[in-house]
Amino acid sequence: MPVNLELSPGIAVDGIALAPVAAGIKGNAKNDLLLIQLPQHSTCAGVFTRNVFCAAPVTVAKEHLHACEGRVRAMLINSGNANAGTGQPGIDMARKHCDAVADALGIEATQVIPFSTGVIGQLLPDTKMLSGITLAANSMGADWAAAAQTIMTTDTQPKLTSRQFEIDGELITVTGMAKGAGMIQPNMATMLAYLFTDANIDNSDLQLALEQSVDLSFNAITVDSDTSTNDACMLVATGEKTSLNPKHAQWAKFMDVLSAVALDLAQAIIRDAEGATKFITVNVSDGANRAQCKQVAYAIANSPLVKTAMFASDANVGRLLMAIGKTELDDLDQNKIKVSIGDVVAFEAGGIAAGYSEERGAAVMAQPEIDIHVSLSNGDASATVYTSDLSHEYVTINAEYRT
Amino acid sequence: MPVNLELSPGIAVDGIALAPVAAGIKGNAKNDLLLIQLPQHSTCAGVFTRNVFCAAPVTVAKEHLHACEGRVRAMLINSGNANAGTGQPGIDMARKHCDAVADALGIEATQVIPFSTGVIGQLLPDTKMLSGITLAANSMGADWAAAAQTIMTTDTQPKLTSRQFEIDGELITVTGMAKGAGMIQPNMATMLAYLFTDANIDNSDLQLALEQSVDLSFNAITVDSDTSTNDACMLVATGEKTSLNPKHAQWAKFMDVLSAVALDLAQAIIRDAEGATKFITVNVSDGANRAQCKQVAYAIANSPLVKTAMFASDANVGRLLMAIGKTELDDLDQNKIKVSIGDVVAFEAGGIAAGYSEERGAAVMAQPEIDIHVSLSNGDASATVYTSDLSHEYVTINAEYRT
Repeated sequence: MPVNLELSPGIAVDGIALAPVAAGIKGNAKNDLLLIQLPQHSTCAGVFTRNVFCAAPVTVAKEHLHACEGRVRAMLINSGNANAGTGQPGIDMARKHCDAVADALGIEATQVIPFSTGVIGQLLPDTKMLSGITLAANSMGADWAAAAQTIMTTDTQPKLTSRQFEIDGELITVTGMAKGAGMIQPNMATMLAYLFTDANIDNSDLQLALEQSVDLSFNAITVDSDTSTNDACMLVATGEKTSLNPKHAQWAKFMDVLSAVALDLAQAIIRDAEGATKFITVNVSDGANRAQCKQVAYAIANSPLVKTAMFASDANVGRLLMAIGKTELDDLDQNKIKVSIGDVVAFEAGGIAAGYSEERGAAVMAQPEIDIHVSLSNGDASATVYTSDLSHEYVTINAEYRT
Repeated sequence: MPVNLELSPGIAVDGIALAPVAAGIKGNAKNDLLLIQLPQHSTCAGVFTRNVFCAAPVTVAKEHLHACEGRVRAMLINSGNANAGTGQPGIDMARKHCDAVADALGIEATQVIPFSTGVIGQLLPDTKMLSGITLAANSMGADWAAAAQTIMTTDTQPKLTSRQFEIDGELITVTGMAKGAGMIQPNMATMLAYLFTDANIDNSDLQLALEQSVDLSFNAITVDSDTSTNDACMLVATGEKTSLNPKHAQWAKFMDVLSAVALDLAQAIIRDAEGATKFITVNVSDGANRAQCKQVAYAIANSPLVKTAMFASDANVGRLLMAIGKTELDDLDQNKIKVSIGDVVAFEAGGIAAGYSEERGAAVMAQPEIDIHVSLSNGDASATVYTSDLSHEYVTINAEYRT
């Protein structure tokens, strides 16, 4: 059951048409194919997995995004099959499905970006995909909730949310949807996420905005340290409303709202992580640089021993120290590091803090939301990472995923 | 239950006296303190954890080993309490206990090396330690099996083994004991391990021999990617028999036997890993260099998604590809990488191998011992890493360890 997963409702972005359909890829009656059509003057930015075994659609997506110079007109997303580890036949198939979408919508094939998520190592069911594309192209609508549902794999809830703000009396919307659940340690964005705005932003500015917001959101979460072969995060600007660029007085406001939507979705992925019973925020401050802080935060967030202690509500300070220390960072001094569990200082000056007690630590650990704070006393950089605990349910889900 | 954990019996090394006693550190009647006395002309080498939060005994052990120039006369090991995260009071206490051993045995305090393993963040019970030391000093004997039992924490079986070989008709013995179970990803040696030989080897050669054998054994295992604060591996040569050095004709033979004992113990730690139901060997070959091969092997061995698939006997090729790929190594080409499960080729030329079937993969995965082989087609280096699966029992043990 997700941990406090509540998102403000998703708001349709004008001009974008959606068609969630059941193509039979999952082998049941659930929707598993989503076609998204973008207005003619949309711009589009993307970040993709760095996994060496990046999936066929990732290869084709990068190629098409480059070839159409960001002038994307459609995105095709299937769940149930990742089209990864499928070699040249997989790439050929991703291209063929883009061709089919292009034919159906009267656009160029390079204006179609493909995405897949699901089981690795199996070819997509070609006939089902083609029928699904035809069906979708003939049933474009605006059911955003059904769209978010369609891209789910082991997610227990769809993830769709929006924020709005005004510029000179004009209402600007940022709406995003994402899927996550497991195989989550982004290095870039993880999983699939789609962000849309009706502002008018050129491609290079859009790419900058996406990368900045992803660094603080999708690139700051981990479930199991495993980076997927299919991760992608896209940002579309339909251009229907106010023009924005980094020199614009309202750019900071746009970035705040965009980052907030991205963070809401990223946190929603952790709240709905496989087997999660806790939502854990690891904040590392006073480091030499942001990379060092992130390294320490991920060492804690990915430690199986820390994660099982979280599951057990065990205020195990020793495991936190172990995890910080295993980074083997030469410039850290164990006598200067301070560790807090919630607002309870647990460790400082080389030893368990005066006034700390297991009872005080355990009271924090018993909550569904746990904040761990580490001060490195080594500079003024900081980083925050979000993670879940390691429960029996995680083992059950991942030991039985395909059976 | 350990996976096929059988070790050839331990053989006493002449001149070494042992005293395993119950000091009450664990709060029950089990032996938890081991005093080892070495003959006068012994040499001693050591490798220690690189964890920033290295425990007080690690700090003192390194200091003493240096100060006595390897002329160690005693080792004091307690289980039940790691004396880690205990600041200056912890260091003072480790020194005090070395003083007590020195007084009792009539040696210098710097000739005593301390080790602790167990819960982090609590001071050692001083009075119990001092009484235990007195008791031990008055009951030195040669019960090697009881000694191996004494250093256990969550291990289910003691780990003691020996190998012998002849040089010019003289029998040389190498005997080792170790403790492991969890918090195991050595970077150096993990856990506690003690190796003894009756050969005569000077300190610098002994250090070289230890580092070489550790690289292929204790530094090639992982349970949970978590590096302990207290890891140490020691190698003692009593000097009672033949003199050996790297120029000696029989040095290679000695290194083979030493490495074999170290590997037996390292593998025993994995066979008895917390919750292990599988013993998994990950061999990566044809890499650009050994570091690259080890990085890929550890990426597989530490992946929670691979480890849960192993637990489920699920021949999940996709998760192996994901784990290899998440190393983000620029010089790897997914179309050249070959992955085998046992002797079944599962993936090659960018796709699932012709002739591969889930049934063939699953037949291998159902065995208690699983070999994963990855050829990177990127050079001629190789590396092997040993690991266990991620089971419900692992979560249970680590969610309940202290309660």
